[in-house]
Amino acid sequence: MNRGDLLYEGKAKKLYQTDDPNVLWVEYKDDATAFNGEKKAQLAGKGEMNNRIAAFFFRYLRENGVDNHFLQEVSPTEQWVRKVTIVPLEVVVRNRAAGSMAKRLGLEEGRMLPRPIVEFYYKNDDLKDPLVTEDHIDVLGLATAEQREEMKRIALQVNDLLGKKMRELGVTLVDFKLEFGIDPDGRLILADEISPDTCRFWDVKTGKVLDKDRFRRDLGDVVEAYREIWNRLEGTTP
Amino acid sequence: MNRGDLLYEGKAKKLYQTDDPNVLWVEYKDDATAFNGEKKAQLAGKGEMNNRIAAFFFRYLRENGVDNHFLQEVSPTEQWVRKVTIVPLEVVVRNRAAGSMAKRLGLEEGRMLPRPIVEFYYKNDDLKDPLVTEDHIDVLGLATAEQREEMKRIALQVNDLLGKKMRELGVTLVDFKLEFGIDPDGRLILADEISPDTCRFWDVKTGKVLDKDRFRRDLGDVVEAYREIWNRLEGTTP
Ligand SMILES: Nc1ncnc2c1ncn2[C@@H]1O[C@H](COP(=O)(O)OP(=O)(O)O)[C@@H](O)[C@H]1O
Ligand SMILES: Nc1ncnc2c1ncn2[C@@H]1O[C@H](COP(=O)(O)OP(=O)(O)O)[C@@H](O)[C@H]1O
Ligand SMILES: [Mg+2]
Ligand SMILES: [Mg+2]
Repeated sequence: MNRGDLLYEGKAKKLYQTDDPNVLWVEYKDDATAFNGEKKAQLAGKGEMNNRIAAFFFRYLRENGVDNHFLQEVSPTEQWVRKVTIVPLEVVVRNRAAGSMAKRLGLEEGRMLPRPIVEFYYKNDDLKDPLVTEDHIDVLGLATAEQREEMKRIALQVNDLLGKKMRELGVTLVDFKLEFGIDPDGRLILADEISPDTCRFWDVKTGKVLDKDRFRRDLGDVVEAYREIWNRLEGTTP
Repeated sequence: MNRGDLLYEGKAKKLYQTDDPNVLWVEYKDDATAFNGEKKAQLAGKGEMNNRIAAFFFRYLRENGVDNHFLQEVSPTEQWVRKVTIVPLEVVVRNRAAGSMAKRLGLEEGRMLPRPIVEFYYKNDDLKDPLVTEDHIDVLGLATAEQREEMKRIALQVNDLLGKKMRELGVTLVDFKLEFGIDPDGRLILADEISPDTCRFWDVKTGKVLDKDRFRRDLGDVVEAYREIWNRLEGTTP
């Protein structure tokens, strides 16, 4: 398989065509962005860590019954994925209040929620990804009611699986963001990435932040923290 | 019945105790505020218009099966209401995209929605009344699932009734905000106010704005527009 034309360059990844119209070639970049692109940096080694970690999680999820776009790793920073039509929603699962939720609702950072909750954000950079309700999703036609319920169900299943895995590795899964796509057969599958860029991970013992908040909050040693996550994952069988 | 101590002074109304612990004495003020209190003015006659209009709507709703806190008018700017414990949610019904919804979701002001939708905002001045999802309401304990569904049902019923009445008067009901309270028997009832301060009203023929957006957007003749709504209502039997 050959890497074809650049199809799309996002904030964290480049998507290329391949010989197969159903396959995309994804390159994870070293670029870090936060606050809707207002804050930017280059972090050497981030692309490699995210590519490896995302590949690990996608394999682990597939083995545990969660279908997704991942096909295979093709270099330290690249992977092949199934091409899908991305649903324009960011699906967030939260076990604890943190980040925008803690701020919006006046909750203490890290406050345990009585149960995991799922939020939807309209994936739209111009509008700064606003929170949307189920009615908004419906009247804007962003997803059908069936797709919305399916995304919720899968998101909570991913939460159970990732939460269990990370707990074994001494890491608290605070929250994470997923994206879904529709494959050529019209089936909804998990896509995009799962990495320290899209999850909040806290070391269980020390509380140390092991995710993109190190970049957002200028805590330093960003890639080192991502490598810490990768080292712990690599030591286990998926 | 005597007017007792001032219990609470809000942005638009003063609430006083009465001899009856289950009854509050509400005075509608001439104060206008917008954008979470950032913009302020005194508009002579607004209190009277809102008191009369709210009393009209509450009577009309009761006659049509929607129980609410209204008891009786006691002066041009005052009414007695049943004291309730306010549920800390602003319940918004929208028939068309306008105001914050149009802005947040990138929709054209006035764009018709395929069906009326209900939104909930957490009534919290410090947090600037953030939009909340059903899960947020649940995990914050702002209302039970039953209360939430009951508020939605009543809100849509109020929308049908108000929409019909206003259409008869040549006015489009774009959206409105409701508040609910729990009475001493634990029953959920409609409370607070329904007025041009809390609704968007557009003249059907000319499109003229006949509500608080005249104040928000410096369109002038604010109280005159409220009086126009009152004149049209007064000419009908509730
Ligand atoms: N399997 C896929 N098929 C098509 N597009 C995808 C797939 N997986 C992810 N994408 C999209 O790839 C784009 C590039 O990723 P990224 O750099 O993270 O972009 P963004 O700047 O939108 O966060 C995103 O818009 C994402 O939705
Ligand atoms: N029947 C009622 N019993 C108790 N409180 C009420 C009742 N109806 C309305 N309220 C409350 O009265 C307060 C005063 O009204 P207002 O001036 O509009 O306040 P705000 O500044 O919060 O908008 C509001 O907090 C409202 O929730
Ligand atoms: Mg992305
Ligand atoms: Mg008010």
